[in-house]
Formats: sequence, C-alpha cells, structure tokens
Amino acid sequence: MSVLVVGSIGLDTVKTPLDEKADLLGGSASYAAVGASFFTDVKLVGVVGDDFPQDHVDYFKQRKIDLEGLQVEQGKTFRWSGEYHWDMNTRTTLSTELNVFEHFTPTLPAAYGNTQYVLLANIAPKLQSHVLDQMQRPKFIIADTMNLWIEIAKEDLLALLKRVDMLILNDSEARELTGQTSLIKAGSLIRKMGPAYVAIKKGEHGCLLFGENHFFSCAAYPLEDIHDPTGAGDTFAGGVAGYLASRSTGEVTFDQLRKAVVYGSVLASYNVEEFSLERMRSLNMTDVEDRYQMFKIMSHFEVLE
Amino acid sequence: MSVLVVGSIGLDTVKTPLDEKADLLGGSASYAAVGASFFTDVKLVGVVGDDFPQDHVDYFKQRKIDLEGLQVEQGKTFRWSGEYHWDMNTRTTLSTELNVFEHFTPTLPAAYGNTQYVLLANIAPKLQSHVLDQMQRPKFIIADTMNLWIEIAKEDLLALLKRVDMLILNDSEARELTGQTSLIKAGSLIRKMGPAYVAIKKGEHGCLLFGENHFFSCAAYPLEDIHDPTGAGDTFAGGVAGYLASRSTGEVTFDQLRKAVVYGSVLASYNVEEFSLERMRSLNMTDVEDRYQMFKIMSHFEVLE
Repeated sequence: MSVLVVGSIGLDTVKTPLDEKADLLGGSASYAAVGASFFTDVKLVGVVGDDFPQDHVDYFKQRKIDLEGLQVEQGKTFRWSGEYHWDMNTRTTLSTELNVFEHFTPTLPAAYGNTQYVLLANIAPKLQSHVLDQMQRPKFIIADTMNLWIEIAKEDLLALLKRVDMLILNDSEARELTGQTSLIKAGSLIRKMGPAYVAIKKGEHGCLLFGENHFFSCAAYPLEDIHDPTGAGDTFAGGVAGYLASRSTGEVTFDQLRKAVVYGSVLASYNVEEFSLERMRSLNMTDVEDRYQMFKIMSHFEVLE
Repeated sequence: MSVLVVGSIGLDTVKTPLDEKADLLGGSASYAAVGASFFTDVKLVGVVGDDFPQDHVDYFKQRKIDLEGLQVEQGKTFRWSGEYHWDMNTRTTLSTELNVFEHFTPTLPAAYGNTQYVLLANIAPKLQSHVLDQMQRPKFIIADTMNLWIEIAKEDLLALLKRVDMLILNDSEARELTGQTSLIKAGSLIRKMGPAYVAIKKGEHGCLLFGENHFFSCAAYPLEDIHDPTGAGDTFAGGVAGYLASRSTGEVTFDQLRKAVVYGSVLASYNVEEFSLERMRSLNMTDVEDRYQMFKIMSHFEVLE
C-alpha cells in the first residue's frame, strides 16, 4: 500500500553552535516523504516555487516518490531559517518567508483520492482537512501538528482531530493542547478528542504511544552528537506512516504501531546525525534494521525468574 | 546478602497544590532502607533526635531493618519542609533545620564492617567516604548524590567517585557535574570519574543505565496522579541496592543491573502514589512483581520478522 504525504516543502538555512548551512532541502513533507519512502511508495502533495533546485526534485525521484501532486508555482519557494542553541533542544526561528506557500491549496491529482494511508504532515489544520475532503475512505490517517496551530487555529485543529486515526505531537504541544502537565493524562485526553492513537514525542527522551487499553514507551537512541535536529519529528512521522502502509493486512494493530514507532525513531535518530536530509541519502535498509535491533537491545531486560 | 544503608533520617513537611502534611517520616536513608527491605536484610546507619516518633522506629523494625547503627542523640531530629508546584517536577525548599544532623558522624557498629553491599544514600560526600573508611572490602558500593554537593563539595565528591562501583544521580545533576548537556556524553564522562556504572534518573522520563559497552534505557511507569514525589530517587536507589544484594552470586552483571533498575523504578513509582512512605506500608511483593511485568509489557515490541 502507498502513503500520501502532504505538508510543507522549503529551503532551510540552519545555524548550530558549530556550523551553518543555507538553502537546504527542508519542510515537513520533504522529511516525511523521504522517511516513508524507506518502507513503501509515496505520493507527495506540496508546493514549491520556480527557484526550487532540480537537485532536490531529482532526490525525491530517486526515492521513487510520486511527484504528480507537487505543484510548481511562479515565485519563490517557502524559506525558513533557524538557529539551535548548545543543548540542541531549543531553537529560535530567525525568519520565515511563506512565498508560494502563502496561498497554497493542496489539490490532489485524481489518482490520489483512493490512497489508503495518509500522513498529514505539519501544515495548517484547515489545509490538512481540505486534503481529507478530496479523498475517498482512507484506511488510516495520521496527522502531525505544531504549537502555532494550537495557538492560532485551535478550532480547525479540533475539527481535524475528529477525522484522524492518529495524532503525532511533541510533549509541550500535548501539554498546551490539553492544559495538562502530566503527559499520561494529556495522551488520554487527546484520544478523547478523536484519534484512537496518540504519539507524544519527547525528543531525547523517546516517545509515548497511547491506544485504548494500550500503552507503549519507546526509548530514544543514545546519540552522542546531534548535528541538526530539524525534521526529526517529520522523519519520525514518515517512518511510522510508511511502515504501517507497508504492513497493511486488515486492521492496524497496536502491535504494528509499536513497531512503526520504533522504525520512526530509528529514522529520526539517523536523520539528526547530519544537516537537512543528508544522512538519508547514504542510509540503507540494513542500517535501519541494525538500529532497530539496537533499540531492542537497549530497552530489553529479563522477565522475572 | 544484606545491604548497609547510610543517609539522612528526618521529619518532613510537604505541601503540594492539593494537600499539606506535617511531621512525615523522611530522609534519604529512610526511603532507601525501606526500598531495599523489599528484597533483602538492611542495616541502617543514621541519626535522629530524641523527639523521633517511636512509630517510625517501629515501622523500620517491622521492615526487619537492623537499627544497631541508628544513633539517637539529644536534641531535635533533622527537619525539611518543601513545596511542590503544579507540574510536580519542580519543588521549593521552604526550610531546612539540620538539628542533630549537623554534627552527625556515621560510626559503624563493628558487625557492619564486612557488609558486602553498601548504599551511600544522599548525604555529604565526606560522610559517605567516612563510611567506606570503616569497612573491609565491600563487593558493590552505590552512591547517590545531589546538586548541593556538586556545588559546595565537588572535590569530596570526586574523591568519593573513585571508590564506588555505581553512581546514581538525576539528569540536571549529571549535566552540572560534567558540564555536558548531552546525557549520553555525561554518562560516559562520569564513568571516567570512577564508577563502572552510572544511573541517570530522568523523573517522568525513566532512567538511563551506563556500563562498559552497555547501555539500558528504562521507561517510567505511566502514573496519572503523583501525590508526593519526595523520596522517589532514594526509594529507587534502595530498590536497586536491595535487589542486587539479594541476587548476589559472583560478580554483579549488567543483566542484574538492568533488572535492579527496573525494580528500583517499580518501587519509586509506587512510592509517589502517596505521601511520605505511606504507600510502602501497604505494598507487597505481589504488587512489585505485577508492576515489574507492566514495565516489561509497556516497553516491549516485536523483533523484526
């Protein structure tokens, strides 16, 4: 089964305490689509300007990502610039230029309408809902979001949540959305807003997965050096969606979701090792499976004797 | 094998957003000794004043804790008062009265000198070292510490670290001790300071265990309500030490340490469910083993097909 990914595509300028790089491939959909492409066929919906480097288009093609849904508009591509501080957990947005993204309406090619797995990567919840409006009955819909939408488009977000199977968000966003400091309570409350499954990402502390009467705590991979955290969450979401789509037989089970979350964590842990999507370019499935085993080993302990 | 526990014993007044209780049994050694007593015989070294309630002494006795090393001095028992805020992760110390603890010197009864397992619960590192000076060759020494000693007694702490097998500390303390924001780097650096094993506690995010070429990530139990976090870290340390002592056959292995850390986490997760050591009073080994299985279930995912 293939997965439809919609979100932002941009050119990023990223500054870390040790380095700075400009005009990098970025955007939630770029990371998510490439992440998902490790497991299954991907259909990408997004917009770029006519300045978008052919190199990046070629990379998507090399990952066998279907670009029929990629709109190329006259004007400049969305640009974001940010700076990470020493702990790599906090970042400051230096500038955001929406450019062609400002008037983006995700219009799906007819052939995309019956895709069974959908990943609504981080964009305005209204646009995420608009994508669903154009689809027949997808089997499993995952949405990602960010604090901005909780703050300026909460009604849209709450409307979207009733339509999705799984929400992925980070710990501070889960707290902000629910007004609960306990992540356990927050996860339960978000499930009551609509999604049967909720994944709360905790950065260097891993992530929590909530389902009905099910709970899974996934560790984070112990990286000593993180070079660029940009896109880690999007890559995670892409890995989750891609794995689920690749394993589609009958209903999505909590067991599959556990594995999907580990795969997403594996991909995200690789992605932060280099700037932008650079690490993904050299990554292969043997690397992915090796680190999956490492996740198993590092969280394993013996049952009682 | 039995375990010797040394640390503070006090009377706590604890305020949370919902409740306030005075004159509770507290102190690092109280929590640690009771935690360890779930697994093995415990010898307690500490000091109390002549105002220390007989009730608390009786509770130690009921837990079969050897009190030959408990000094009762003329004067008042050590008192601490603190307040937790809404997120239960931050607390403010309202007052500290050292009282008889001010001139405490842990003097070991002769019979304690050859105890094989030692838990140096949180007290000044100089006093922790003084306990080791009075011992023959213990098999495994665990030390706990706190930010105060990193700030005002770093030399003493560094001297102690060369003499212990395992250090337990929380994430902010690990960062403060090493000047590293990455906990993975911090764990490795602390191992170079002496202890072969390091456990970094991350509160609601579980804990990380470091050994030579070994790493274990232990989840935290998903509690919806925490009533009093006081002593969680001490209870954890007690559980770790008690389990290790109870399983002593040959060298302590990383495999045993993994289990010990899960047992410590189980005990700590129960302890925060009520004020002071109240939850420990009704806890039995079936409860402990049940929750151990829950830790297994919530961190379990399938290996690759």
